[in-house]
Amino acid sequence: MKKSTYKLIENYMNDCMTDSAHDKEHVYRVLYNALSIADTEDAVDYDVLITACLLHDIGREEQFENPKLNHAEVGAEKAYQFLREHHFPQEMAAQVRECIRSHRFRGEARPQSLEAKILFDADKIDVSGAVGIARTLIYKGQVAEPLYSLRQDGSVSDGTNDEKPSFFQEYKYKLEKIYSQFYTRKGAQMARERQQAAAAFYDSIFHEVSAAYTDGIDILRRQMEE
Amino acid sequence: MKKSTYKLIENYMNDCMTDSAHDKEHVYRVLYNALSIADTEDAVDYDVLITACLLHDIGREEQFENPKLNHAEVGAEKAYQFLREHHFPQEMAAQVRECIRSHRFRGEARPQSLEAKILFDADKIDVSGAVGIARTLIYKGQVAEPLYSLRQDGSVSDGTNDEKPSFFQEYKYKLEKIYSQFYTRKGAQMARERQQAAAAFYDSIFHEVSAAYTDGIDILRRQMEE
Repeated sequence: MKKSTYKLIENYMNDCMTDSAHDKEHVYRVLYNALSIADTEDAVDYDVLITACLLHDIGREEQFENPKLNHAEVGAEKAYQFLREHHFPQEMAAQVRECIRSHRFRGEARPQSLEAKILFDADKIDVSGAVGIARTLIYKGQVAEPLYSLRQDGSVSDGTNDEKPSFFQEYKYKLEKIYSQFYTRKGAQMARERQQAAAAFYDSIFHEVSAAYTDGIDILRRQMEE
Repeated sequence: MKKSTYKLIENYMNDCMTDSAHDKEHVYRVLYNALSIADTEDAVDYDVLITACLLHDIGREEQFENPKLNHAEVGAEKAYQFLREHHFPQEMAAQVRECIRSHRFRGEARPQSLEAKILFDADKIDVSGAVGIARTLIYKGQVAEPLYSLRQDGSVSDGTNDEKPSFFQEYKYKLEKIYSQFYTRKGAQMARERQQAAAAFYDSIFHEVSAAYTDGIDILRRQMEE
């Protein structure tokens, strides 16, 4: 890819994500993860892959404003329009559109091409490990959801089968389970290398919090008079 | 303390912190940490301690609305007024006021009484370990600050000497350094038990992120044409 082409696409990404510092960091991590995966695969179309990585989340603001929209669908169409307006070949634009459309974890479209599989894996790697923990906590701060929920007896729930959203619930429902869901060998390996860091963090915070409640409630009870 | 007294004070805390789910969880963790410390000390005034813990952050919303205000000063006065209006003894209300006034990490007032030292330590324990990491990340999400800053050469700064606020900067500037600043033996021990979890998380996330940038930028450079 020519440097000027990269700059053109990067500028469009920046225009689409003006208010999202975190999302932009994520875009570059996904691009760099994807390049590390691509480096272990044959016959990767780097023009398609780099473009799809840079533009994969440009539909986020539309989904944020209207949660019924799917940012993968919106972003795929925006990317296609942008590329066609700037005279990129129709086939290349269509391949990028397909990568972006199928990158979503909970989406219905499944990645088919090698580049789509690499983008999917690169995006999922950013949900793994310590980075995945950090991004989830930052998101909980943005939407004002708590770290954990309490059980009826006042003890801290570990998140399993929780109905109310919290960090512990998200860890048990999603973060803990992503490590088997990769398309590429390198992607699976990168995520596996990070798995222990995420598990260790969850174990530590659950222990810190639940021990505080257990010990504290016990001492408080002793200090209370009817 | 009578259960009805506890409920009265707890209700006032809830009235003061209507919009802050995270802050309320923090209040209970501080109370429980304080009780675990108190359990190892002699002659603790539990009425003063429990009241000061429940009310220690009730000045937060005033400070949030006007950052020139000090939430420890505001909360101390609010607590004193509340206790006097509800006919708590003047001396007890004054002791609670002094605890709250001196609990702030960056404040000028230093804790003098045993109860003030316990509150100070209990509050600082909630900045240590995995819980301290999680609270800092949630805060970064709330104020839209990034995980890290990039150096001039595009590599990830580890946070040391950063001028721009970020999670890595906060870790190096504050979180990493708190473990020596405790007044009670039990408080220092509780924080020390959590120190490794926080350090391990920072090391993991820094390695994940900086490796992604280093490897990715290198491969990207090879794919670029002038």
